[in-house]
Amino acid sequence: MRIGELSARTGVPVATIKYYVREGLLSGGERRSHNQVEYGEDHVRRLRLVRAMVEVGSVPIAKVREVLTEIEDPERDLDGTLGVASRALWQSRVPSEEPAAEDLETARGIVRRQGWESIDPDHCYVWSLADAVGRLRELGLIEMVDLTGEYARAAEIVAEFDLRLLGLREDRDEILEALVVGTVLGDSIFGALRRIAQIEVSGRYFPRGEGHREPREDDPSSKE
Amino acid sequence: MRIGELSARTGVPVATIKYYVREGLLSGGERRSHNQVEYGEDHVRRLRLVRAMVEVGSVPIAKVREVLTEIEDPERDLDGTLGVASRALWQSRVPSEEPAAEDLETARGIVRRQGWESIDPDHCYVWSLADAVGRLRELGLIEMVDLTGEYARAAEIVAEFDLRLLGLREDRDEILEALVVGTVLGDSIFGALRRIAQIEVSGRYFPRGEGHREPREDDPSSKE
Repeated sequence: MRIGELSARTGVPVATIKYYVREGLLSGGERRSHNQVEYGEDHVRRLRLVRAMVEVGSVPIAKVREVLTEIEDPERDLDGTLGVASRALWQSRVPSEEPAAEDLETARGIVRRQGWESIDPDHCYVWSLADAVGRLRELGLIEMVDLTGEYARAAEIVAEFDLRLLGLREDRDEILEALVVGTVLGDSIFGALRRIAQIEVSGRYFPRGEGHREPREDDPSSKE
Repeated sequence: MRIGELSARTGVPVATIKYYVREGLLSGGERRSHNQVEYGEDHVRRLRLVRAMVEVGSVPIAKVREVLTEIEDPERDLDGTLGVASRALWQSRVPSEEPAAEDLETARGIVRRQGWESIDPDHCYVWSLADAVGRLRELGLIEMVDLTGEYARAAEIVAEFDLRLLGLREDRDEILEALVVGTVLGDSIFGALRRIAQIEVSGRYFPRGEGHREPREDDPSSKE
């Protein structure tokens, strides 16, 4: 297909496609004549992956290039490539300094209690968790850590479905695209759903007005 | 207590406390003599709430003032005040334009299927959900919406615990502080836990190397 069709198929403007080729994020098409360059299905898939990282994940161009290099590495299995892409999306949230030892210990304890054993205890996600734990401690709200067991249970439900979605795909670029989009938009979707659920639950914990001190479902007046 | 002690108790520098008083986020202390101003426990609680919104929630000063005005409103019950504070934290993520009708319909369907009935169908959280749904549709990944039922289930688990934590507090300022901190740091904690869980689950879906096609726990070689 010509570049115009590639643009129409992926929703990426022609100028942007040319920019990605110059930046080495997309291989150039095959030149057929002096004014015709052919692109194939590989280009469609790769372009969709690049767009997902740049537009949806706000991953910097240099980092996208790094992730793509990892994908091409024949030594790296899919599980490892997924890890590289996932970390690229999270990078801005990793604390720049090593968290305090007590917070790291608390974070590792949360992970251990959930029975999660694959993760390196110094993984950047464990550091992020320790960083948030440290903020709670500084704010005098460390008892919130006791709730993280429920958070971890909910996180496992979400992760199960994240991965099930990836399992529906066969092509490596498509799996990675689904990971990027699912992770970033999944965070937004989960955030919105959590707040909607809070409104539902809040009505039970903090009933409106003095006449409704009991949870609404226990309000005898509503049953008659 | 003097301003120095108020600063020590809350971890907010004296200059910042004076700035908050000038901006109307904190009432001035009681003047006892020409160089002594007394602050009380109310100031400690209010200052912790302001700090949580500004530092943890990145809420702009003008918006903090708006939330505080709502708290003082005797007409507004706690459930309503929680809603105001929660929306202030989410504001930057509300789409500026009304989402497409089909995406709004999909978002409302997700909420309805979960049995959530308290929320206004045009609430900003429903709009945010519709916005993310629209992004999935544009990206050709609309089948991900089928997974939102599980996300909603997990969100309800998290919201139950969010609210249980608030229920442990009695003072309105403290409840709101816990809401702000819990919501913002809760997002970070959940995000980190989701990614750690993905690593655990990923090892099952995408086993490492050719010799481990089966999930690891089913690997007979590991049992002997």
